[in-house]
Amino acid sequence: MKANVQRIEQHIELLSQFTSTPGVGVTRLTYTMEDLHARIYIKEKMVEYNLVVTEDGFGNIFGKLDGTIPDAPSVIVGSHFDSVPNGGAYDGAAGVIVGLEVAALFKENNIKPDYPLEIIALVEEEGSRFGGGLMGSRGMMGLLSMEDFNKLADKDGELAVDAMQKIGLDPENIKKRDPKTIKAFLELHIEQGPILEETGFQIGVVEAIVGLTQLEVTVQGQAGHAGTTPMDRRSDALVSAAQIIAAFPQLAKDEGAGTVITTGRLNVYPNGANVIPDKVVFTVDIRSGKEVHVLNAVQKVKELVDSQSLGGIHSSCEQMLYIEPKELDEEIRSLLKASSETLEIPYCTMNSGAGHDAMVFSDFTACGMVFIPSKDGLSHCPEEWSDSSHLADGATIIYEAAKQLTEDKI
Amino acid sequence: MKANVQRIEQHIELLSQFTSTPGVGVTRLTYTMEDLHARIYIKEKMVEYNLVVTEDGFGNIFGKLDGTIPDAPSVIVGSHFDSVPNGGAYDGAAGVIVGLEVAALFKENNIKPDYPLEIIALVEEEGSRFGGGLMGSRGMMGLLSMEDFNKLADKDGELAVDAMQKIGLDPENIKKRDPKTIKAFLELHIEQGPILEETGFQIGVVEAIVGLTQLEVTVQGQAGHAGTTPMDRRSDALVSAAQIIAAFPQLAKDEGAGTVITTGRLNVYPNGANVIPDKVVFTVDIRSGKEVHVLNAVQKVKELVDSQSLGGIHSSCEQMLYIEPKELDEEIRSLLKASSETLEIPYCTMNSGAGHDAMVFSDFTACGMVFIPSKDGLSHCPEEWSDSSHLADGATIIYEAAKQLTEDKI
Repeated sequence: MKANVQRIEQHIELLSQFTSTPGVGVTRLTYTMEDLHARIYIKEKMVEYNLVVTEDGFGNIFGKLDGTIPDAPSVIVGSHFDSVPNGGAYDGAAGVIVGLEVAALFKENNIKPDYPLEIIALVEEEGSRFGGGLMGSRGMMGLLSMEDFNKLADKDGELAVDAMQKIGLDPENIKKRDPKTIKAFLELHIEQGPILEETGFQIGVVEAIVGLTQLEVTVQGQAGHAGTTPMDRRSDALVSAAQIIAAFPQLAKDEGAGTVITTGRLNVYPNGANVIPDKVVFTVDIRSGKEVHVLNAVQKVKELVDSQSLGGIHSSCEQMLYIEPKELDEEIRSLLKASSETLEIPYCTMNSGAGHDAMVFSDFTACGMVFIPSKDGLSHCPEEWSDSSHLADGATIIYEAAKQLTEDKI
Repeated sequence: MKANVQRIEQHIELLSQFTSTPGVGVTRLTYTMEDLHARIYIKEKMVEYNLVVTEDGFGNIFGKLDGTIPDAPSVIVGSHFDSVPNGGAYDGAAGVIVGLEVAALFKENNIKPDYPLEIIALVEEEGSRFGGGLMGSRGMMGLLSMEDFNKLADKDGELAVDAMQKIGLDPENIKKRDPKTIKAFLELHIEQGPILEETGFQIGVVEAIVGLTQLEVTVQGQAGHAGTTPMDRRSDALVSAAQIIAAFPQLAKDEGAGTVITTGRLNVYPNGANVIPDKVVFTVDIRSGKEVHVLNAVQKVKELVDSQSLGGIHSSCEQMLYIEPKELDEEIRSLLKASSETLEIPYCTMNSGAGHDAMVFSDFTACGMVFIPSKDGLSHCPEEWSDSSHLADGATIIYEAAKQLTEDKI
């Protein structure tokens, strides 16, 4: 039995209307009225599909179909339902909708699972209101202390704990979920990149969520008058920074294996048209699916930065962030690939370049992720779009996997 | 007869105390209390040296020693007496003080010139209060319309015309000076660069004030997620900008003749650590003493920028400013060199990389400029410092030149 494209399209259409920026994309920040309206919709649908609805002390939504084995751990399917400001209708929501569709298919097929099926809709994955990201999943896995949660505030100073109560959520609800109550986690997400569209595959089975390292490079030179300082007497921090950054693409290609290196933020000081820059500070974001490539690339970037410490230039490198790559569960990957083959849906295996809630869960349980193509590779913008038939294919694959994972095979 | 080092040191010492930032450099903005106090000091000294003092409708100060020829044009000596915020005691003030010293030497030697000698102290050369720069010289040469002057305001919205009246200046005074009343203009200035100090010459006779071109380059690429966009599918605006900027030093060296190319201001958009930059905008400041080199360098920079318009990158170049190089008067240069030789003061010829009031006057009259060394090449900072003996040497050379220029040699 295949997923219902019309039902999926209706969910996308209706959920996308819960935005504070109608006409300019989806803006659904955590614990706002848009969160509340989307929450009501998701909970209604969960009830309609025979699920028992609960909310935890962060406002994560759970819809549970009990299994026949008493106290057995759940197979969880879902994603997050918050968005970035002026984002699209698919990032996060697509995975929640696939969860709802899996529940609908369980109901339509009158499936009585051995292990419980749980559909999940997580809060604040993007971190757009309270910062940091992955708050809902980190919170429920005990990676966010009560003390830290109680300090979280938005840019206007409103505390998360106050904001959630304003939309009727109870922060006194249980927050931490015992990992033993989870058998597996399945998430569908849009790719947010161009690979699937360009290669023509409808499904990407994610092998690993890439490791992420962020460095901050500071190049210190000597300021001087743009007119009175001869070229051979300069210690121009921007020229040195430019030489470093210009070398990154080749360095990443040499490392291979999909390694990417990006300087996204760069600030020049004093940043006056007629002053030779005395300081440039920039970020270096390094990602790869295998840790060895991340570590190699970090080493090469550091050597490149050091090589610019010459004459009046002093350059240094500080590691701001290090997240190791997370390989997803091999058995679940096989299950997803086998389902794709049975259903005759063309798939490829790939890495996820972005972080996802599955990254958090993978330290506690077996995780699987399915990507569907993003039109023009775009995401986090109103133009974000995915084909409903791809979404339905992804939902069918995840339904098949969830069906098998909830079966007692003894 | 040589200039008096002690008198010069006293002028430097006393004028530097008219600052709104005691202890952190000289901050003497135009039409402030510090301007008024410095103005009173300069006018007192002018009177002491037998000059007749007037102020024009901009507050430029003139101290005149009449010549024996009726209605003859003046030989003017001086510079500006405003400063940048937290600047030094020498930029501008040194040239005014040399003017005062020349007048003192005329008095001490009881010289009765054929042509009048005028000492000038100009306002707002730096443009630190009302923007643009060279306001005093441009104003008196008729390059600033009454309409434009009446609109000039500082960052707090105070009009220049109101501010000048607050310190007792009369905007109704005559503003425009007939170029026919000027025979020559002589200016001493600190070098604001490292050349004299490093080469060991005490005096630089300026051959030309360099031409200045400012370009604004915009590199437009395509934003993308730093994690999900493979290296070979990127249109990274910052990588392209870096490749352009990294090539400037070699390009300037290849052009030679002291050509300098500087990117001082660069802004990255959207400037987020995990977003591939879709736009970078930066300035390119190009200077050379000969126009042909400026034009060559501009052409090469434009070709370099165009060469980066590839794939998803579109780069473009807009010319924001073009000031042609100003060659200073050959006869006066010879006079200054001859004086240096007679006085056995080691000198070299050089270009001025920075703009000066002499740049404005050079379109109307014969101009000469003398540079003295700047310690560590520093300027526009509290550490700005020049040796009083160099200042005295410069004053002696300018005195000798002024004596000859005010003589009727028929």
